[in-house]
Amino acid sequence: MRITIIGSGNVATHLAAAFKNAGHHIVQVYSRDMQNAALLAYHVKAEPINNLTEISSETDLFIIAVKDSAIGPVAEQLTPYKKLMAHTSGATDLYALSAFSDEFGVFYPLQTFSKIQAVDFRNVPLCIEGANEEIASILQQLAQTISNKVYLVDSAQRKVLHLAAVFANNFPNYLYTIAQQILAKHDLDFDLLRPIILETAQKVQENLPAPMQTGPAIRNDEVTMNNHQQLLKDEPALQQLYTLLSQDIIKLDNTEKGNR
Amino acid sequence: MRITIIGSGNVATHLAAAFKNAGHHIVQVYSRDMQNAALLAYHVKAEPINNLTEISSETDLFIIAVKDSAIGPVAEQLTPYKKLMAHTSGATDLYALSAFSDEFGVFYPLQTFSKIQAVDFRNVPLCIEGANEEIASILQQLAQTISNKVYLVDSAQRKVLHLAAVFANNFPNYLYTIAQQILAKHDLDFDLLRPIILETAQKVQENLPAPMQTGPAIRNDEVTMNNHQQLLKDEPALQQLYTLLSQDIIKLDNTEKGNR
Repeated sequence: MRITIIGSGNVATHLAAAFKNAGHHIVQVYSRDMQNAALLAYHVKAEPINNLTEISSETDLFIIAVKDSAIGPVAEQLTPYKKLMAHTSGATDLYALSAFSDEFGVFYPLQTFSKIQAVDFRNVPLCIEGANEEIASILQQLAQTISNKVYLVDSAQRKVLHLAAVFANNFPNYLYTIAQQILAKHDLDFDLLRPIILETAQKVQENLPAPMQTGPAIRNDEVTMNNHQQLLKDEPALQQLYTLLSQDIIKLDNTEKGNR
Repeated sequence: MRITIIGSGNVATHLAAAFKNAGHHIVQVYSRDMQNAALLAYHVKAEPINNLTEISSETDLFIIAVKDSAIGPVAEQLTPYKKLMAHTSGATDLYALSAFSDEFGVFYPLQTFSKIQAVDFRNVPLCIEGANEEIASILQQLAQTISNKVYLVDSAQRKVLHLAAVFANNFPNYLYTIAQQILAKHDLDFDLLRPIILETAQKVQENLPAPMQTGPAIRNDEVTMNNHQQLLKDEPALQQLYTLLSQDIIKLDNTEKGNR
């Protein structure tokens, strides 16, 4: 397929590379910042542009990988080309594009990307939605060229997924930060925790998380929880978080308690 | 070394196997439950016992891998043997053993274990403490036979580590449970989130977590956060947790914000 990439952030970068690797032709890369456009365009052998008036009509698909609030304004400028367009946002409705084209869809990769870390795209879940069945089918076939995990997901489901991903990705990463800060305060190296962080994530690759729950809260080990609260006595915000999470874990249904 | 394992839980099981694999002789495995003792003893070619009066004195080290509240009562019964003893608890002081032996230490593996999942022990951080330098050295050398990550950690530091591990392991696993429950409520498969969970943990293997933070809170994306609150409107406990974690992430120092 001939694909135009709108955006040069993490999602745009990883998607463009995956498309290119699968043999698709990346026509242009657009970014407001010419340097960013040029850097990504160079990697995927595309033309860099920083002005949407320079868009080539020799393309089959606009991938709109910009921040949520820019999706509408960008799509509006792509209207004259009358091409298939898809946004990549977990939080944005399919119909955010309906005013700007008759052919629109969603191409949402459910993964966290950073420019410094390569991702095996074959394992990235791609959540596809189309304005009609034909579009869904086109996007689904495109998705299957870069990933083994392609799902048809409607806008309501995708918003739920996006919320769940905040609990599964953003919040755990913040808890890692808390742990790292606790260690740093006591001159302990974060290396000590890296293996347990990885193992915790690996455990739920084959199992559900509830039966994997361990720790003082699931055992209702009040002595240890009180000792932890004591260690946090100068950190009221962390004490509050510790209490809230522990109370919720204690309430986990007994039937969900497994080995610990 | 000749090692006697007191306990048959997850820590006892994985430690005994690692010692055995490294060529040590497991003399006996003790558990109150003879079936549990027999199962582990069979795997490490040891004698199973379920009565501490049957302890053999032909050993060099008692590894006390029982729940925290049982460490004292068990150690008391091992006093007559006058052998080196070490507990494996992150939350328990070294001196919990001082009344029961002149030779005592701590052998704390900073990892989460489950009986159903094998662990590469060479990557498990082992936190060692001894009542004196000689004992620390003996336990350190033993630790090095099973792990490449051996640390000398005193009781105060170990308690901090144990607290940090709750934030890095127990609480993230609970957040995975919340995410799984949100998906299940909307008939979505947890498989959709497994890759992002693993990637989030892998990202911090080489990087610190704060610069890896992504999501609506670090962007202060109020539209998305309000939409998420709306999706959680029937779940006041989750709303509270979402608000608390998001507010803390928003407060993350600007200098710690990296790519997102």
